[in-house]
Amino acid sequence: MDNPLKALTDELVRVHDLAAIHELLDWDQQTFMPRAGAEARARQTALLAGLAHERFTSDRIGELLDACSNMDLSDDEWVVVDRVARDRKRALCLPTSLVEELARVTSEAHQVWVTARSAKRFDLFEEILGRVIDLKRQKATAVGWPDGGHPYDALLDGYEPGATVAFLDPLIREVSDESSKALQAVMGSSVSPRTDILRRGFSVEKQEAFCRRVLDAMGFDFEAGRLDESAHPFTTSFDPHDVRLTTRYHGDYLPAAIFGAIHEGGHGLYEQGLDLDHIGTPLSEPGSLGLHESQSRLWENQIGRSLPFWRFWYPVLQETFGDVLSDVSLEAFHLAVNGVRPSLIRVEADEVTYNLHIAVRYELEKALIAGDLAVGDLPEAWNERMESLVGVRPESDSDGVLQDVHWSMGLIGYFPTYLLGNLYAAQFAVAAREQITDFDDRIAAGDLMSLREWLRNQVHRQGRRYEAPQLVERVTGRPPSAESFSGYLKERFGPLYDVTW
Amino acid sequence: MDNPLKALTDELVRVHDLAAIHELLDWDQQTFMPRAGAEARARQTALLAGLAHERFTSDRIGELLDACSNMDLSDDEWVVVDRVARDRKRALCLPTSLVEELARVTSEAHQVWVTARSAKRFDLFEEILGRVIDLKRQKATAVGWPDGGHPYDALLDGYEPGATVAFLDPLIREVSDESSKALQAVMGSSVSPRTDILRRGFSVEKQEAFCRRVLDAMGFDFEAGRLDESAHPFTTSFDPHDVRLTTRYHGDYLPAAIFGAIHEGGHGLYEQGLDLDHIGTPLSEPGSLGLHESQSRLWENQIGRSLPFWRFWYPVLQETFGDVLSDVSLEAFHLAVNGVRPSLIRVEADEVTYNLHIAVRYELEKALIAGDLAVGDLPEAWNERMESLVGVRPESDSDGVLQDVHWSMGLIGYFPTYLLGNLYAAQFAVAAREQITDFDDRIAAGDLMSLREWLRNQVHRQGRRYEAPQLVERVTGRPPSAESFSGYLKERFGPLYDVTW
Repeated sequence: MDNPLKALTDELVRVHDLAAIHELLDWDQQTFMPRAGAEARARQTALLAGLAHERFTSDRIGELLDACSNMDLSDDEWVVVDRVARDRKRALCLPTSLVEELARVTSEAHQVWVTARSAKRFDLFEEILGRVIDLKRQKATAVGWPDGGHPYDALLDGYEPGATVAFLDPLIREVSDESSKALQAVMGSSVSPRTDILRRGFSVEKQEAFCRRVLDAMGFDFEAGRLDESAHPFTTSFDPHDVRLTTRYHGDYLPAAIFGAIHEGGHGLYEQGLDLDHIGTPLSEPGSLGLHESQSRLWENQIGRSLPFWRFWYPVLQETFGDVLSDVSLEAFHLAVNGVRPSLIRVEADEVTYNLHIAVRYELEKALIAGDLAVGDLPEAWNERMESLVGVRPESDSDGVLQDVHWSMGLIGYFPTYLLGNLYAAQFAVAAREQITDFDDRIAAGDLMSLREWLRNQVHRQGRRYEAPQLVERVTGRPPSAESFSGYLKERFGPLYDVTW
Repeated sequence: MDNPLKALTDELVRVHDLAAIHELLDWDQQTFMPRAGAEARARQTALLAGLAHERFTSDRIGELLDACSNMDLSDDEWVVVDRVARDRKRALCLPTSLVEELARVTSEAHQVWVTARSAKRFDLFEEILGRVIDLKRQKATAVGWPDGGHPYDALLDGYEPGATVAFLDPLIREVSDESSKALQAVMGSSVSPRTDILRRGFSVEKQEAFCRRVLDAMGFDFEAGRLDESAHPFTTSFDPHDVRLTTRYHGDYLPAAIFGAIHEGGHGLYEQGLDLDHIGTPLSEPGSLGLHESQSRLWENQIGRSLPFWRFWYPVLQETFGDVLSDVSLEAFHLAVNGVRPSLIRVEADEVTYNLHIAVRYELEKALIAGDLAVGDLPEAWNERMESLVGVRPESDSDGVLQDVHWSMGLIGYFPTYLLGNLYAAQFAVAAREQITDFDDRIAAGDLMSLREWLRNQVHRQGRRYEAPQLVERVTGRPPSAESFSGYLKERFGPLYDVTW
């Protein structure tokens, strides 16, 4: 008999490749697919999801896992066997028909959402969102959750292994309280950023050129990746050698493209940094979505909105756009990109209010999955919570409940990983500053590669050897908490707005 | 038990969808995939080809076919069962390992070809092309060919069901002789087209806008399709609702983009015109590649290079490009786009020499598959044949043996279908002119939809009900021959060049 570990790896690569092909279908649907292609795409997606699921839950992988667990395994080999066994146990709870149905319905729902959003009409989306929620509730029931837990735990675990409502509730409350305090302080400040300077006319072509230049400096490999445009920026990877970023360009609003590109670039570096020697196995998979988001938010905010970063890049930006920013000082620009103001759209929210947007979604998702909130009541619930937490109330569903792509794609339990990403990012940034000599000077000199290398070793190359809390503690010396993030808000926004809280 | 015909159709749709996903992988590789993604793509492609093959050759489809053949079938139902049984018989000759290996090697070979072509070095391509040829020879042996036939017949049959060397040899000889005679006559003419007017500066953006306008008038549905750019124009379809065309733009050479787009548009209309009620079955599949090419060549040449077409479109073109063509008369432009001149590159060849390019490839392919020509001797054999048949000799392999994408993709036996397409197109054009009232007047008035509708009914909607020769005879009243094409050359180029032959 072949070495069972080798045979297992071969099978895992096939499952991985099926998943990668599924990703390509999704990427294509969001970037290039003509509208009318949606029906066939839903069929193709369901077929592929079913094939991957059947292959992964096959007896053959079960037998190979059994054979492996009787072997003398190295630490890394044990990680492979353990994580795969865990994933497979979860997968075995799900009938193939449910997996296929979820893929089909979410593929359809995505197209319906596009239409509903542009028509600003939640009622067009309501019926199919109801089907998505129903399927996700079925999935939660099939997977199950710990005694005393919450049905939402079953979904969370698919994105952030080990995360639960019991873990998140107090954390999100603390972050919300800190954010509200910071917001109140900043709103009381007499400092007023000139955000109008970001709303001048910026050639889309030049925006793209600038984004590519920054990504290049970050070490994103364009021979092994792309940057495209899409309505909602995202990153997809089919292989560490084929990583696709998207951003969006507004001719009259500069931050969307730049911070979108840097954010997605952070995701892209994680994917390109995965261990090439173990593709298809948990040693070459991201640790969790929270860890993934920590990379994007670290690059976007901790670095991309920092003064050292713009010391190097602002002159480049000014040069890129000719005279458009020649009357704006570095300090004024830096303050503008850190403008704080309660707003309706999450992806454009500042760092002080961002986590409040997540808190809104988290509460609504828990209620939907628990069956405490009907889909028909969602827009009103959304608007109320936005008003009470963020302080603004959407006038149309497009600026409210329809703004995010996630629910249409069945990504329920996914939003909290954004908040975790912010916390992990703050902790990683503290550690990077401690461990990389002259950190701020390097950034101010345009050296982004030192950070990339550090992240590559500390995070990207670790694969799934550690669960997120373990990895955070290994790298930073402390378990995940809101502490670093709260400290970061004070350090970044206190001096900028000349306030304390 | 379920209705076995329904069950068979369901299975066929799955096989069809797997093939469509495979097409998406190829389309992406040729349009957007970053270079470094090639290795993973080869693996994904092989996996998918294997899955589709296993599914199609499964016992289940065999049993369903058996059950169906005992049923009382309508004519259409019989077509489904008969064609699928035939395809499956062919597929059963091929071991899955060979199918996977072919997919893997050709996916790799495509990337190697891109590199070799841009480096103008056949030696970089030689080794992997040798592997492709070897695998295709294995495939021919596995499939087999009729007694007294040629191994090449086995490959031809995969693209043009029923076509053989015995059928093609005399036909290609006749077309070559006719083409040579026409070429000699035209070369002796004192009429000299001003082809320099096509080499002025043409904004790529405006070229694209014009291409889209023509495609729209042809009835290509952009809600169910796209037009992109690629090195080598091609058409892919994942579904009649998702049909993707590409063309290429040269800022200093107008015909490449326009005739590329019209040509691919002809293919695209065939795909969009397939019967929506029978997707996944032979009733909704193109009849043959020769028929497919008949659609592209009919639109590109019979229509797109005709005087009536430009009566309507030339003013639009002039308006599109401002002053660039204001000094050029309709007649001079029409003559220029029908410029005849022996040249190196097939896809830019005029209609008089085009089939000679095919004849070169046909002879070489037969020799490669028969084992009479070694891959290492290919460049020299190519150059010699080009010189003797077309009258020009390439100075670099990029303009010679490396110019076409086909061999890198394993498409051996495919080129002759281009020549058949030219013959079928000429016959269809004669029939259309007979059957559509005021045909030329309609074209000259910008009405391209009458022709699209006629083709849709006569050809697109027929699926695989008839083999190509049968369908041609049904539509035109005559079996396929070189006659209409020869007549067409005389009618088009005789008056233009003021010669007879």
